[in-house]
Amino acid sequence: MLRVTLFSAVLAAASATRLESLRLRGGQQKEKVCIIGSGNWGSAIAKIVGRNVLDRDQFEDEVTMWVFQENVDGKNLTDIINNEHENVKYLPGVKFTDNVVADPDLTNAVQGATLLIFVLPHQFLGRICPQMTGMAKGCRAVSLIKGIEFKDSKPILISDLLAAEMKKGPNAPDVDMSVLMGANVANEVAKGDFAEATVGCTDLAIGAKWVSVFNTPDFKVDPVMDVAGAELCGALKNVVALGAGFCDGLGFGGNTKAAIIRIGLKETAKFAKMFFSGVQDDTFMESCGLADLVTTCFGGRNRKCADIYAKMQKAGTPKAWDVIETEELNGQKLQGTGTAKDVMTCIKAAGKEKDFPLMCQIYRIAFEDAKCETIIQINN
Amino acid sequence: MLRVTLFSAVLAAASATRLESLRLRGGQQKEKVCIIGSGNWGSAIAKIVGRNVLDRDQFEDEVTMWVFQENVDGKNLTDIINNEHENVKYLPGVKFTDNVVADPDLTNAVQGATLLIFVLPHQFLGRICPQMTGMAKGCRAVSLIKGIEFKDSKPILISDLLAAEMKKGPNAPDVDMSVLMGANVANEVAKGDFAEATVGCTDLAIGAKWVSVFNTPDFKVDPVMDVAGAELCGALKNVVALGAGFCDGLGFGGNTKAAIIRIGLKETAKFAKMFFSGVQDDTFMESCGLADLVTTCFGGRNRKCADIYAKMQKAGTPKAWDVIETEELNGQKLQGTGTAKDVMTCIKAAGKEKDFPLMCQIYRIAFEDAKCETIIQINN
Repeated sequence: MLRVTLFSAVLAAASATRLESLRLRGGQQKEKVCIIGSGNWGSAIAKIVGRNVLDRDQFEDEVTMWVFQENVDGKNLTDIINNEHENVKYLPGVKFTDNVVADPDLTNAVQGATLLIFVLPHQFLGRICPQMTGMAKGCRAVSLIKGIEFKDSKPILISDLLAAEMKKGPNAPDVDMSVLMGANVANEVAKGDFAEATVGCTDLAIGAKWVSVFNTPDFKVDPVMDVAGAELCGALKNVVALGAGFCDGLGFGGNTKAAIIRIGLKETAKFAKMFFSGVQDDTFMESCGLADLVTTCFGGRNRKCADIYAKMQKAGTPKAWDVIETEELNGQKLQGTGTAKDVMTCIKAAGKEKDFPLMCQIYRIAFEDAKCETIIQINN
Repeated sequence: MLRVTLFSAVLAAASATRLESLRLRGGQQKEKVCIIGSGNWGSAIAKIVGRNVLDRDQFEDEVTMWVFQENVDGKNLTDIINNEHENVKYLPGVKFTDNVVADPDLTNAVQGATLLIFVLPHQFLGRICPQMTGMAKGCRAVSLIKGIEFKDSKPILISDLLAAEMKKGPNAPDVDMSVLMGANVANEVAKGDFAEATVGCTDLAIGAKWVSVFNTPDFKVDPVMDVAGAELCGALKNVVALGAGFCDGLGFGGNTKAAIIRIGLKETAKFAKMFFSGVQDDTFMESCGLADLVTTCFGGRNRKCADIYAKMQKAGTPKAWDVIETEELNGQKLQGTGTAKDVMTCIKAAGKEKDFPLMCQIYRIAFEDAKCETIIQINN
């Protein structure tokens, strides 16, 4: 308890420093970064962002990280992070720079922020966003959340959802939304292995700002003016990965799997263009497209579960998705199956089954008892 | 000997049938297909083409296949193929349809041909092509040869080389050249596993003709009007695969390898555009581009040898490329290293090193003692 009280005092002091530093310096207001979320990917990115803001003049030194409070071995996770500069629960063994300050109080964490980084499971958004108040005017945000929502048989971008949810708060500002997507296995990024990423933005000046937040020699970030294209790549890759997993489970060779990946990327682009304006072909050749899809279709939990699904079906002992999920994912969730269902609903409602033979066939295999062997019935 | 004499009679009879069948039927001359080459890939494609011409009215039934004569267990390979309808040396266990007729005599094999399929190691071309006479007027050809030549620090397409070499023969016709490229591991195609391929052509009507020669439900062929783009994908993928192999050998993860593949495809497109006109971005999203590159960077001999090269270098016991080739490839050749050298010569001569950071770095690692770890120094 003493520790908590002491820590609150530290936080209050930090908060005062923060307000002071928002003053104009050399005629220019410095950017104040807040990370909302602290899981595996959030912690990996906090390591990068924490170091970057120290190296670059345009940022306040302190980066706040809103952490969903948990008790870890009798201590608050935020206290552990602030004392040990490490998220011992979600990214053990990786140290943050000292300027990354965990805060369990959302309102406090976002206070005065000019740059918000959203990196948390998207089921939290509805509860979190309307509570957010006190960001600086002209605040911008970037979503690192890979997923998609659907309403009335149409896809809704998580980034649009974020903007809409933030508007529900008191005195809510309009927040410009970008996304950061790419072939970014969190533990590898945290380790410092070379990776690329793509910022999808509405404006190249804002894209350049996010590049300066995230880019390092080992984490190479390129901007594209295409939020929807980049974000849909991150969501639909999990559906394609089911197809790749079916191939693997049946023992199909490299030709077939490469075809599934290629057609999957083409259908992702077609889907994005059908529902959103401004989607660009080039986006799918960026890290968010081709590279993330390749990574997901060779590694990744969706591929793995689909591999098992196909093997069990072939052996005559089929297993349901929820059983495979429980047995294999250690509490993590399988995203591809839910997205496959929703994507299918959109395609059906638009009467465009003929344009999406792969997505449709993956759906039929996953939910309509089609044989996994039919994955190659893709006469697009 | 008796067998050979008898077989010559059979061939002569077949030849007469062939000439007769070139007459107009129903007002339209049928296409006569000749396959030049009979290795692993040539034999896999002969299985497909032999069946397709029987199914489609626009073709003569007989497909000739020029076979470099070899003695197999005391018999001529051509005799074995014509008796057993199987290339026991290069694609054992896979049967052709009976209408695929092996012929050791090149002039005889190409007689009256309207469609030539080149599928042989490209070191044979200079010797073979000028001998070719007697093809039908307006004869067209397709190259299945993956490789590239270089002269005066510039790349030369094998398809252009083929056309030029054929012009050296007596009464030599102008032959329109297409290419067939894609993620096509020969044994998997022969087995009937689903695969895609791309025809690069100068004209969509000619492309459609080649589609009808090659396309099956399990071998899906799409045309693009871009010979150079498609052909360069097939050649430069082997250089990129060296980069992927270095990553694997060092134990780099999925993010890094996906980045190498992505940047490799972008640089392949840039290289193609720099030296050839009419190259289209879309080509690189076809099977010849993205899909073949993925297959090669996960399987394939160039990846494998580069993996070993990196492991040995890292262990402090480096091995030369020719040693690895001899030890690992069972007589096959490593294409990526030679192509990497030639590509580097072109890039240097054009003064464009800055535009090709990955290709340059692969060259430095392969030939200038740079450490494999520097593969990620790709500030493009």
